[in-house]
Amino acid sequence: MTKKPNILYIMADQHRADYLACAGHPTLKTPNLDRLAAQGVRFSQAYVQAPVCGGSRMCSYTGRYAFSHGAYYNNYPLRIDEKTIGDYLRPEGYRVALVGKTHMRPDMETCERLGLDPESADGVLMRQCGFEPVERDDGLHPDQLVDPNLAYNRYLKEQGYEGDNPWHEYANAAEGENGELLSGWFLRNARRPARVKEEHSETAYMTDRAMDFIRETPDRPWCLHLSYIKPHWPYMAPAPYHSMYGPEDILEANRTHDEKADCNPVLAAFMQHEESLNFSKEEVRKTVIPTYMGLISQLDHHLGRMRRFLEEIGQAENTIILYTSDHGDYLGDHWLGEKDLFHDEIMQVPMIVYDPRPQANETRGRTIDDFVEAIDLAPSFLDWSGGEAQPHRLEGRSIAPLLQDRKPDDWRSAVFADSCFALRDARKDLGLEPDGARAFMVRTSHWKYMRFENQPPVLYDLQNDPKELKDLGGSNAHAGVRAEMDGLLFDWMRKRKLRTTVSDAELERRTGGAKSRGIYFGVW
Amino acid sequence: MTKKPNILYIMADQHRADYLACAGHPTLKTPNLDRLAAQGVRFSQAYVQAPVCGGSRMCSYTGRYAFSHGAYYNNYPLRIDEKTIGDYLRPEGYRVALVGKTHMRPDMETCERLGLDPESADGVLMRQCGFEPVERDDGLHPDQLVDPNLAYNRYLKEQGYEGDNPWHEYANAAEGENGELLSGWFLRNARRPARVKEEHSETAYMTDRAMDFIRETPDRPWCLHLSYIKPHWPYMAPAPYHSMYGPEDILEANRTHDEKADCNPVLAAFMQHEESLNFSKEEVRKTVIPTYMGLISQLDHHLGRMRRFLEEIGQAENTIILYTSDHGDYLGDHWLGEKDLFHDEIMQVPMIVYDPRPQANETRGRTIDDFVEAIDLAPSFLDWSGGEAQPHRLEGRSIAPLLQDRKPDDWRSAVFADSCFALRDARKDLGLEPDGARAFMVRTSHWKYMRFENQPPVLYDLQNDPKELKDLGGSNAHAGVRAEMDGLLFDWMRKRKLRTTVSDAELERRTGGAKSRGIYFGVW
Repeated sequence: MTKKPNILYIMADQHRADYLACAGHPTLKTPNLDRLAAQGVRFSQAYVQAPVCGGSRMCSYTGRYAFSHGAYYNNYPLRIDEKTIGDYLRPEGYRVALVGKTHMRPDMETCERLGLDPESADGVLMRQCGFEPVERDDGLHPDQLVDPNLAYNRYLKEQGYEGDNPWHEYANAAEGENGELLSGWFLRNARRPARVKEEHSETAYMTDRAMDFIRETPDRPWCLHLSYIKPHWPYMAPAPYHSMYGPEDILEANRTHDEKADCNPVLAAFMQHEESLNFSKEEVRKTVIPTYMGLISQLDHHLGRMRRFLEEIGQAENTIILYTSDHGDYLGDHWLGEKDLFHDEIMQVPMIVYDPRPQANETRGRTIDDFVEAIDLAPSFLDWSGGEAQPHRLEGRSIAPLLQDRKPDDWRSAVFADSCFALRDARKDLGLEPDGARAFMVRTSHWKYMRFENQPPVLYDLQNDPKELKDLGGSNAHAGVRAEMDGLLFDWMRKRKLRTTVSDAELERRTGGAKSRGIYFGVW
Repeated sequence: MTKKPNILYIMADQHRADYLACAGHPTLKTPNLDRLAAQGVRFSQAYVQAPVCGGSRMCSYTGRYAFSHGAYYNNYPLRIDEKTIGDYLRPEGYRVALVGKTHMRPDMETCERLGLDPESADGVLMRQCGFEPVERDDGLHPDQLVDPNLAYNRYLKEQGYEGDNPWHEYANAAEGENGELLSGWFLRNARRPARVKEEHSETAYMTDRAMDFIRETPDRPWCLHLSYIKPHWPYMAPAPYHSMYGPEDILEANRTHDEKADCNPVLAAFMQHEESLNFSKEEVRKTVIPTYMGLISQLDHHLGRMRRFLEEIGQAENTIILYTSDHGDYLGDHWLGEKDLFHDEIMQVPMIVYDPRPQANETRGRTIDDFVEAIDLAPSFLDWSGGEAQPHRLEGRSIAPLLQDRKPDDWRSAVFADSCFALRDARKDLGLEPDGARAFMVRTSHWKYMRFENQPPVLYDLQNDPKELKDLGGSNAHAGVRAEMDGLLFDWMRKRKLRTTVSDAELERRTGGAKSRGIYFGVW
C-alpha cells in the first residue's frame, strides 16, 4: 500500500490574494510562495465563504457553507455536531493537529445541556474544532483577555523578555525615540520594529512549533494546520521586515470618489467606521501597508525554512503543502478598512497547492483559473487521505482532480458566501435589529452580487468593471441581472446539505424498503 | 405568584383537519372535541411544517422549520443541539413528559463521536426528544421490529392476551369467519373489529398511562405530550368503533379525472404507489374510511374520559389542553393514499386550544382563521410557562395573544413547509439521486405552491379552486404568481435562525464593544 501523504495546511490570516509576487504584485517579494506555485499549482480564483475569520474558518474546517453549519460570524459557536477535518481524517489513520489560530468558539450551552465534559478527550477535540491542540493561539492577547498560561508568553519569558504579558510589551510593541513603549494596536506605530527579535516573533515561533510536531510524528501520516496570526493586525513587524518596504512600494488605493458619492447604505455605514476613515487617509496607508507587506515576506521566509526542514528530515516528497488565507484586508480600498464585506479584496485569497507526488506532475507550474472555494479543503484532504467521499454532508468538492488535469465537467461556475454584520456599529447606524444584518454573496465570472437584508443590494459588472468601482445595485437596466443573481442564491440555498448523518448509501438501502422491515401500508 | 398552568399537549397521528364535526364533517361524531372547541378556540387554518410524522413532529417539538433543524423526513436524526419543548420548559419548573409517539431518531453518530453516554440522564432526554419518557411507543410493532420489552405488550399479556407479540396478534389483528387471524396491515380487513377489547386498545391504554402520570405529578406544573398512535394506519379499530360508521358515512373523494390527465410528474409518480392505487378504488375507501372515522371517535371518547379525570382530581381549572395532529391522510383524495405531499388534506391539521384561565375568556367558542403553524407550539408553551421568549432560536410565534384577542399586527400571511421524498419509490421512478427529491411548500390565503427540485412545480389558486384540483404549475398566465411564490420561499429561507446559541441580548451587548475588551483595530 502506498504511504498516505502528509498534509501541511498553512493558513495566513488576512492575506489578500493580490499580495503575492506570483500573482502580479509589482514590489512585494514572496520568493518561496512563488517557488511553491511554480512547483505546484496556483488557483487564481480562490474564494472564502465568509468575510471574517471565524465564519470563513468554520467553512474551511467543516467543508460546508456558513448557512449550513451556522457559525456565520466571529464567535458564533459552531454547531456541536459539525464534523471537521480532524473527524474526517482521524479514521484514515491521520494525526490531525493545530499550531496557531482557529477562531473556534465552542457551543458550551449545548455542551452543558448534554452533559458533555469539555475536558474529556472528545470534549477537547470538539472545543478545538477537531484539531489536536498542539498549540492553540488566536493571536490577540491584550491584558484584559490574556491567558496567564499562554504558551507564547511562557516562551518569550524563557528567552528573557520581561513582564506579565510580553506579547503585549514586546511582540505587539515598538519603542519611541526616547525609549517609550509604543503600542502595536495603533496604526501610527506600524513602521517601527517590534520589540521582539524576528526569531522570537509569533511567525517564527509558530513555525518552530510546527517543526516540533512534525519531528515528533515520524510514523503516522499527519495533517498539520499551521495557522499563522499574521499579516492580520496589529500591524507590527520585527526587524528587518518592518523596513523591507516603503511608501513607494504600495499599490495605489482601489477607490474612486464616485464610490462615495452614490453609495449603498451598508457600504456607506462601513465607510464611517474608524478603521475605514483612517485607511482612507494616504498617511495611514503609507504607514501600514509597507508593514503588512513585510509581514507577508516574513511568512514567506518561514515557508522557505519549513520546506528546507521537510527536505532535511526526508518528508518533503510525501507532504502536500497548501497555502491559503481566511480572507483579505481592505487596506483603504473602496474607502474601507478591515473586512466584513464582500469585495474581492476580502473574498479572494491566495491558494497555492504543491503535491509532490507523480500524479500531480501534469499541472506543475500552472495557474488554474477555475473557481475554488475554501469549503473544498476538507473534501480534498479526505480525498488525499484515501477516505470515502461524504457528499451527504460535505458541500465543497475535492480539488485533487484539478491538480491532475481532470476537472469534472460539472465544476462550479459561481462561488457563494454568507455572513452578517450584526456585531458591527454599521448595524446600529442603520437602525437594524440583531437579525436584520444578514448578508449574502454570489460571484460569477461576470457578476458580483451582495444581498443585504433590509438594505439595497450591490452589483458589479466584473467584465467591464473588474475592480468593483461602479455599483449597479440600483440600476434599472440591471434589474434582470439582479433577479438572476437572486435566483442563483435561491438555488444555492435550497441545496444546503442538512441530512448530515444519513449517508447516500443508507438512504438508497432504505428507499422503498418498508415491507422488508415488516411495515405494510396501503396494501389491500 | 400565580400557579403555572399545566399543559396537556395531545397529538393524534394522521388526523385530518376536516375530520371533526365542529369543522363541518357531516357524519363524524366528535362531541368532546366539539365541546373543547366551544369552550376554547378552534384554529381553522393550522398547518404542519412537514407532510410526514418525523419531520412534522421535530418541527413541533423544536419550534423550528425542518430547514433549520435538519430532520426533514422520517428517521433523519434530529441535530443533537436542537432544543425541544422539554429544554424550554424544565428551567421554568415543569415536568415535561411523553406518553406515546414522537418518531424521534437520535443522532447516535454524533453521540458516539462526542462520547455522550446515551444511557445518562442527559442522553436519555436527548434520545427522547427532550421528553421524560414515561412511555415511548411509536406504535408499529411487527415481529421484525418489536421491542421484547414493549410496555404495551407487557400490559396486554397481563390482561391475558397471549403470544410473544400480542400487539401483532390482538391489537393489530381481527378474526376471520372461521376464527383465522386477519392482519391489520391489510386494508381489506379494516371493517372487522380488532381482537383487542376497546379498554385494552392502544388509545385506551395511552390515556390510562397519561392519567397515571398526572396522578403522580400533583405538586409541580407539568407538560404532558399525550401522543396517540391513531388514527394512523394500521386501520383497525376495536368494537364498537369498527362499526360506528358505514360506507354511506364517508365523504366523496376529492379528485377529478382531469387531475390524472394533466399531471405533475411527482404527483403522477406518487399516484403509482401501491397505497395510491388502492385508495383510488371505491371499495378500499368504503372499507377503510369508516374505520378511520371510528378511530377518531374513539380518540374523542378518551378525550372525554381525560377531561372528567382532570375534573375529578381538581386539575381542570389549571390545565391548558391543546389537541392537534402531525399531518393528515389522503384517503384517496387526488388519487393518492397516505401522505408525503403538500395538499391541504395532509398539511392542515386540527388545532383546538382550551385555556381555562380567565385571560382567555374573550375568545371562548371562537373559530380563528389566522394561519398558525405547528412550530408555534413550543413558543406558546414557553409563553404559558412564564419563560422568556427566545427569538434567536424559536421560529414559531406564541399563539397565546390570539387566545386573548390580541393578535399582533404583523401576524404571518403565509405558512411554509419543507420535506423530501427520497425514501419513497417515486424518487427512483423519477430517476432522482438521493439529494434530488427535496420539496418545499408555501401557502397563502390565495395560493398553494409546491416546489420540487428537478421537477415542475404545482400551483393552485385557492380562491377559485379551494379543493386543489386544477394545477396551474405549467400555466403561462401564472408565471408571475410562481415567481412571487419563489420569492416568498427565498425570503423565508434567508430568515432561518442559525445563531442558535447567541441570544439577541448577548449580541446587543457585544456590538461594537471590541475596545472594551482591549481589542483595538483601525485606530490611528
